[in-house]
Amino acid sequence: MFPFAAPVRDLRFVLEELLEYRSLDLPGFGEASPDLIEAVLEEAAKLAGEVWAPLNARGDRQGCVRREDGGVTLPDGFAEAYQAYVEGGWNGIGVSQALGGQGLPEVVASSVQEMLHGANMALGLCPMLTAGAIEALAHHGSDALKETYLPRLVEGSWTGTMNLTEPQAGSDLSKVRTRAVPCPDEEGDHYRLFGQKIFITWGEHDASENIIHLVLARKPDAPEGNKGISLFLVPKFLVNDDGSLGERNDVTCASIEHKLGIHGSPTCTLSFGEHDGAIGYLVGEEGRGLNHMFTMMNEARHKVGVQGIGVAERACQHAFAYALDRVQGKARGSEATISEHLDVRRMLLSMRARTDGLRALALYCAAQLDVARHAADNAEREAAQARVDVLIPVVKAFSTDQAVDIASMGVQVHGGMGFIEETGAAQLLRDARIAPIYEGTNGIQALDLAGRKLQRDGGAALAGLIEEVEATVSELRDSGDLAPLGISLAEGAADLRAAMQIVLEQGRDPECGLDAIQAYATPFLNLAGHVLCAWQMGRAALKASAARTSGSDEPFYRSKLAAADFALRQWLPVGRANRSVIEAGMESLADFDASAI
Amino acid sequence: MFPFAAPVRDLRFVLEELLEYRSLDLPGFGEASPDLIEAVLEEAAKLAGEVWAPLNARGDRQGCVRREDGGVTLPDGFAEAYQAYVEGGWNGIGVSQALGGQGLPEVVASSVQEMLHGANMALGLCPMLTAGAIEALAHHGSDALKETYLPRLVEGSWTGTMNLTEPQAGSDLSKVRTRAVPCPDEEGDHYRLFGQKIFITWGEHDASENIIHLVLARKPDAPEGNKGISLFLVPKFLVNDDGSLGERNDVTCASIEHKLGIHGSPTCTLSFGEHDGAIGYLVGEEGRGLNHMFTMMNEARHKVGVQGIGVAERACQHAFAYALDRVQGKARGSEATISEHLDVRRMLLSMRARTDGLRALALYCAAQLDVARHAADNAEREAAQARVDVLIPVVKAFSTDQAVDIASMGVQVHGGMGFIEETGAAQLLRDARIAPIYEGTNGIQALDLAGRKLQRDGGAALAGLIEEVEATVSELRDSGDLAPLGISLAEGAADLRAAMQIVLEQGRDPECGLDAIQAYATPFLNLAGHVLCAWQMGRAALKASAARTSGSDEPFYRSKLAAADFALRQWLPVGRANRSVIEAGMESLADFDASAI
Repeated sequence: MFPFAAPVRDLRFVLEELLEYRSLDLPGFGEASPDLIEAVLEEAAKLAGEVWAPLNARGDRQGCVRREDGGVTLPDGFAEAYQAYVEGGWNGIGVSQALGGQGLPEVVASSVQEMLHGANMALGLCPMLTAGAIEALAHHGSDALKETYLPRLVEGSWTGTMNLTEPQAGSDLSKVRTRAVPCPDEEGDHYRLFGQKIFITWGEHDASENIIHLVLARKPDAPEGNKGISLFLVPKFLVNDDGSLGERNDVTCASIEHKLGIHGSPTCTLSFGEHDGAIGYLVGEEGRGLNHMFTMMNEARHKVGVQGIGVAERACQHAFAYALDRVQGKARGSEATISEHLDVRRMLLSMRARTDGLRALALYCAAQLDVARHAADNAEREAAQARVDVLIPVVKAFSTDQAVDIASMGVQVHGGMGFIEETGAAQLLRDARIAPIYEGTNGIQALDLAGRKLQRDGGAALAGLIEEVEATVSELRDSGDLAPLGISLAEGAADLRAAMQIVLEQGRDPECGLDAIQAYATPFLNLAGHVLCAWQMGRAALKASAARTSGSDEPFYRSKLAAADFALRQWLPVGRANRSVIEAGMESLADFDASAI
Repeated sequence: MFPFAAPVRDLRFVLEELLEYRSLDLPGFGEASPDLIEAVLEEAAKLAGEVWAPLNARGDRQGCVRREDGGVTLPDGFAEAYQAYVEGGWNGIGVSQALGGQGLPEVVASSVQEMLHGANMALGLCPMLTAGAIEALAHHGSDALKETYLPRLVEGSWTGTMNLTEPQAGSDLSKVRTRAVPCPDEEGDHYRLFGQKIFITWGEHDASENIIHLVLARKPDAPEGNKGISLFLVPKFLVNDDGSLGERNDVTCASIEHKLGIHGSPTCTLSFGEHDGAIGYLVGEEGRGLNHMFTMMNEARHKVGVQGIGVAERACQHAFAYALDRVQGKARGSEATISEHLDVRRMLLSMRARTDGLRALALYCAAQLDVARHAADNAEREAAQARVDVLIPVVKAFSTDQAVDIASMGVQVHGGMGFIEETGAAQLLRDARIAPIYEGTNGIQALDLAGRKLQRDGGAALAGLIEEVEATVSELRDSGDLAPLGISLAEGAADLRAAMQIVLEQGRDPECGLDAIQAYATPFLNLAGHVLCAWQMGRAALKASAARTSGSDEPFYRSKLAAADFALRQWLPVGRANRSVIEAGMESLADFDASAI
């Protein structure tokens, strides 16, 4: 397994040159300076490279084991690595100072997340879920709940989980059956929960003192469907009034899953109420559980996209290291490493160009999140939020689909060695494969984009983004050398506009609107992802070109130019095909009888 | 794990309707009739579905274990399932009667292979390797070697292996170092081999009485490079003059690999000559080992393509079964299985359309192989062989790349369940992932196509295929309803012609010809694969449409029409983007410095 070096230089390129550290100008980030941020990135890189990354292969090999006593044993070293993360104060870096965090901008928090997921995706999931619990609680919890639970969650000494899925309720959460029964005869304002939840990430483990489960459940008298679902907080250990830990609650890990990847992350089936019922507290309003959950899910989806990018980055590093080392065949008459063969180099450049494009788009989205949360001007906040809403399904689905493909290409670069588990390339593919599935499958993301997000504002927010793409087109066209990139990006922008019109028009059709949205959703998201990432790479080309013109001829900028050229002229064309796919219509899908095969 | 039903109906559609059983009209197939072939397919389907398929998951779970005594224990039931295959006479169905086989056409043998690989790819590898050994021996072995070894190999009671790779010699076999030392002081005409081979599929096991290793090695006085390499036959057990088994030869399994997939297939490191040297016999001419190996490799590559299709078919069946069973969400206002959601149906139809297209192309190639081997007319044989030569790298690389993607899409259809190993979808992805790597990586296939195969005849053979594509375009255009498919296919054919011109012209350039071939190889193969599979699906549409016109309105034909529409109007456009990729030139690849990241 090759060592992992967190991509500080690449992250800084995006933060400084593409995003110009604009988040730092927002109200509330007064203390954050470029110097501070660089120091934060360097420190995070040490944690990622020196503490988390070396455990990645071991975590995969050992996996998690459910013990006889119902506890879960993590792979060796995972609990200590998580402790190092907590002690370094990393859990709170993106949490607002009002909640006890450090309140750094989202662009910084996302950069750190990318590094940690690249180092050890299975371990990275633990704080990712905690962040969701913090978000839900901070937005919807009562003051009492916040006071009791938030400080420890922000610190990271307690971790959080999201309990949504049940066997019959996956993408369709309206089918949740877990019951939350009021206890008028008992002291306190709690409920008792009964039911079973599956696929609970980090649902049970010993790495933290307590685990705070956020659980979707239904009161006995609740109506069917979405409106009967409420959100409850169920701690693993009950918390005494003085904040100390009390009795073990009636929630147990019934089993853990044997999965394709992320073996170091315990995926649990949790049983609530095998005895008296698990004590839980209502979070937010009755019947608004799904809405409350979605508050935090939006940001969790961004984090999953970032996670995909972390794994893609590691796959790049692996493949480059191998290709620069492995001597095989000849290039231009003499013995050469395989990185000299242009067909191998095509794979390397494709992996690098795509990872760069995905990263730039995810961090652009993070920067918009900073504006949406912190800008002084209300209209500015709203406009940024509208962009965030459109971008998040793209960042989640496109990054994770591409991450799977990038990791698979990484296996291919290794040849036969790629198929041998000890090499480590295969683990990245296995780990990456979950990301298009969880936090809403990529199909659900596409429906969210082509349906709700596009239809509600008639495409206004996306049209605004396309205008920015077109501004970059103009800059490229006026730039001389980079004009061919501008031509290519212009074609992409035109395709996205045309496809958007089809999805908007047919989506509004009262007869077949829903069918049209379902049919076109995936190719539409795919097209949007290609065009928006290509846009970012076009901007990267402009910056890299300017840096070289101003005398900075470092190899870094030359590589960025090659990656941008590849992204716009060899990657974008593949994405543009999605316009033809959408123009082909939905008849063959509608006609197709899956049971007739 | 869902049961597997070998796709007899789909295979028959290709053999009867697309290929019109034309192989049966060739000299030498007098006894084979459509009825016989249908009976063969039905029987093979029983073996695949009832004997081999039920062991697939267990083979994955148990894997192979190297014992203390150097032997390898296969998963439970594998040896018996292989015996059932031998006893059924399946090993010889495609081998000529002169060699003791049944001499059925390649289209039939390939169909049976597809079924068996779909049932159990790990087990299917065993006879696949034996077939290579038979081929090499039949073409290049002395009469004595053939007499001693061929009958048992054809029967299957002995199995064969291919020993090519060494740690420093993978894609570049010129670096082989294994030594074969003549033994003038010993009785017989054997050599003694010393060296280590890696990645030897089914290199050691107890499922057959003997294992016949075909080994690339170098005589002590041999020149460096390719011309010093010869081919040797090294039996696990020496064979006495009366054909009985003698002493154990000095070849041992040093270790087996821990792999991403095909766990039921033992991948061995073999040590030759740890003691006195492994006794081996020269096969064919000294110094021609690589050429002899490539005789058989061409056909082995076709088999790997077919293997990919087998796994893709199984992934389809899995995904369809799940999607038709899993109720989630609503479609048109009422509860529905996920197969009713058009975004899921897009995945299902994409999987089906692609698998159908790949199958039709692979069997078209097999039919051309039949002509190349059996046609009475020499010119006809040569023309068919030229097509086979062009098609084989496409069938190998395109089928296996697509198979990985199809298996990955199959995981996605399952949602969270897809990531759980017990479901079985993930195994198909893990198993499929090796196929783009072995028997020459897909990069090597692309170089073979864009380099040797295209340049040597100036693209004549491929141009002949494109003319056939254009004939199908005309038929579609004249067909009324299917005219839109003709338009789409015409665009694909034009792209392939244009791309071919670029690859031919730039490939001939004395300055940068080799670079151009390397740079364009993969997108060119990818484009060719899309156009040729779309062509076959265009033909499928014509046949299905005719069947419906003649009153056969069975759902099967309706599904085939939907699959063809999808293949031509939604899959082909993605492939067509490769023309733009090629037109973008190779500058960014040539400029890219992989060490500068």
